[in-house]
Amino acid sequence: MGTEFLKIKESDDAKKIIGNLFNKCYASKIEEIDVEDSYNRVLYEDIYSLIDFPSFDKALKDGFAIKAEDSYGTNEENPNTIDVIDFLEAGSTTNKVVEKGKCIEISTGAALPDGADGIAMVEFCYKHDDKVDILKSITPYQDVARKGSDMKEGDLLLKQKEVLNPGKIGVLLSQGFKTVDVYKKPVVGVISTGNELISQDEDLNYGKIYDVNSEMIKSSAISYGAIGKSLGIVKDDYDILKKKIESSLEEVDILICSGGTSAGLGDVLKHVLDEIGEVFIHGISVQPGKPTIAAIVNGKVVIGLPGNPVSAIVIFNVFVAPQIAKLSGYDINQNKKTIKAKLSKKIHSPLGRLQYQMVRLKNGLVEPIFKDSGAIFSLSEADGYVKVLKSIELVDVGEVVEVNLFN
Amino acid sequence: MGTEFLKIKESDDAKKIIGNLFNKCYASKIEEIDVEDSYNRVLYEDIYSLIDFPSFDKALKDGFAIKAEDSYGTNEENPNTIDVIDFLEAGSTTNKVVEKGKCIEISTGAALPDGADGIAMVEFCYKHDDKVDILKSITPYQDVARKGSDMKEGDLLLKQKEVLNPGKIGVLLSQGFKTVDVYKKPVVGVISTGNELISQDEDLNYGKIYDVNSEMIKSSAISYGAIGKSLGIVKDDYDILKKKIESSLEEVDILICSGGTSAGLGDVLKHVLDEIGEVFIHGISVQPGKPTIAAIVNGKVVIGLPGNPVSAIVIFNVFVAPQIAKLSGYDINQNKKTIKAKLSKKIHSPLGRLQYQMVRLKNGLVEPIFKDSGAIFSLSEADGYVKVLKSIELVDVGEVVEVNLFN
Repeated sequence: MGTEFLKIKESDDAKKIIGNLFNKCYASKIEEIDVEDSYNRVLYEDIYSLIDFPSFDKALKDGFAIKAEDSYGTNEENPNTIDVIDFLEAGSTTNKVVEKGKCIEISTGAALPDGADGIAMVEFCYKHDDKVDILKSITPYQDVARKGSDMKEGDLLLKQKEVLNPGKIGVLLSQGFKTVDVYKKPVVGVISTGNELISQDEDLNYGKIYDVNSEMIKSSAISYGAIGKSLGIVKDDYDILKKKIESSLEEVDILICSGGTSAGLGDVLKHVLDEIGEVFIHGISVQPGKPTIAAIVNGKVVIGLPGNPVSAIVIFNVFVAPQIAKLSGYDINQNKKTIKAKLSKKIHSPLGRLQYQMVRLKNGLVEPIFKDSGAIFSLSEADGYVKVLKSIELVDVGEVVEVNLFN
Repeated sequence: MGTEFLKIKESDDAKKIIGNLFNKCYASKIEEIDVEDSYNRVLYEDIYSLIDFPSFDKALKDGFAIKAEDSYGTNEENPNTIDVIDFLEAGSTTNKVVEKGKCIEISTGAALPDGADGIAMVEFCYKHDDKVDILKSITPYQDVARKGSDMKEGDLLLKQKEVLNPGKIGVLLSQGFKTVDVYKKPVVGVISTGNELISQDEDLNYGKIYDVNSEMIKSSAISYGAIGKSLGIVKDDYDILKKKIESSLEEVDILICSGGTSAGLGDVLKHVLDEIGEVFIHGISVQPGKPTIAAIVNGKVVIGLPGNPVSAIVIFNVFVAPQIAKLSGYDINQNKKTIKAKLSKKIHSPLGRLQYQMVRLKNGLVEPIFKDSGAIFSLSEADGYVKVLKSIELVDVGEVVEVNLFN
């Protein structure tokens, strides 16, 4: 068994190696999509203003487009009566020009007609027949949004890596963008291996268990920005697994296998990956999840996760998810979701081995979830994990810990 | 103009009325979906365990399934040599029975064979030919996960309203669930009205502006759990708008219109809704977004938002989004995303009118974004809004405010 674990790495080294494997195999890719489908996607490029916005001097109030000087000195007792020569709704235009003593009735949103330099609000005007009494003095361009006052052509509007929320989508739309360049989602495939695994369609015969990892890790990959594909269950058979990995790599960017990674009797994944590619990590000195594999096959990263679902999801979150998020354009530091709170129960940790302790948040405190390594129910209540350094044997009640939240 | 605003409501009253309209028109609906598509969906029912898990006594280690008593008193110097009568991999079964003096070699994950009551770990065994030396004493059921120890048939596993994350999906899968009942997403349609609006496919002629609201509010509705549909642009024409609203209501649950809601010259939405339905709110005493409409037509809620995108998205977030989230199954209080921080610039607010001030978060402080009401660029940097009560004229630098974060 000893020779199997020659490639055991410390946690930090493993993170670096896996990061390097991803950097070696992948570069982020661009994808042009319709703005209408861009919610939650990540901008691939800086976005500059295509047009002045507004693209014309725009009325901000209902009223009368006048020469401001026609309002000077007016008040309720001393109105200035001028001619109304046209009416402008938002979206319509006129070829008439506002001159001194004349005005054009105007709706909010309409373009200020030529000659006018202000809006006398309807509340301070009295219209009778084709005339209007201006009852209040205005300043030039009062209640007018000047052309380009909000965004000028060429202005930097949005930056690469910004995640498109409804407001940012609104800005793109206001500029007439129909499509937008975003980070292409990497395709992550997940295979579960193990003779004991059956799908949820099958009968639960004695000694069998339902496959969890292929769909669970798929949904986790989706949560980090990938397109997730469950590739189903494969028996712990060298030739079948080899064939499955080779064919899967033709349809996915990143391949995750789970199970078959310990040095026990059923192990085959390591041998397959050794033959068809190169294994860089076989074992990480962490708890849980020691039997983790990282390899490159045909220029793509293949990860072997432990078969146990709890170990698999912790290892996936710690070592793989950040790389998927990065490829999807997410800023892994900025988007790292952590909270700090006090521990409500002690954590005992094995000296000399870094531990990722699953925890839940309860009443503002962090509660470790202790289960033997085969337990799955803990997944229903886990909010994240706490990292306990290998030099630490005990984290005591009341100590403040940082929780890395699961997606 | 005065008569148009007879149905003006205070903000809190408007929230209550809109909540009541939703309660009157809608009940949450159930939808059965595949577990594999259930990421981020909301459970409609409590989930109980279908089976014991594990469904058999399961080996947690590679080693030898023995009668524990065969290990008692053994150590490196005093091994007990017993017969290996079979070999069990995970997922396989045997009809052989472990008796005193006999054992079955076993892989992690395999079912403990009849007669055995413990696993002697491979690290503390020495195998030679068909025999094995047991080198360490074990306790009964050591390194065995007992049947039902993780989940017992009938146990409550997940509760209604829980949002399905990868871990909870894992729990469902482990129990063999193929489908799951979740809250059905309401379908929210969005129409933009206004003669000045054009789509991003059209040329930007003078006086026209690109439609923002139909796609922006659609994406916001999606972010709160709905299926969003942009229904495009409609001219400010009574008959066209009426026809469009009536046909749209056949394909959506909730209809949002924007524009055409002020009491200005171009207003038609209110009149259409008065004819074909009942208007309950026409105007909310808030800034921005006074000209907001809430009506019921054909048993469905129709909301009229201001045409200005900034006002539209604030009003949508404050008054409509919580109702959509609730219908989608999200706990609006639990999922309300707020943060408290100090203000970096003063907010002046109109006395007597509740104000929703858009803000951004910058260097740990809350910075109000001041723009005239036609400005859209502010949407690119807005993180949320601060509510300023109508009795308050000034919120000063350094005061702690609560920011309601946009989705």
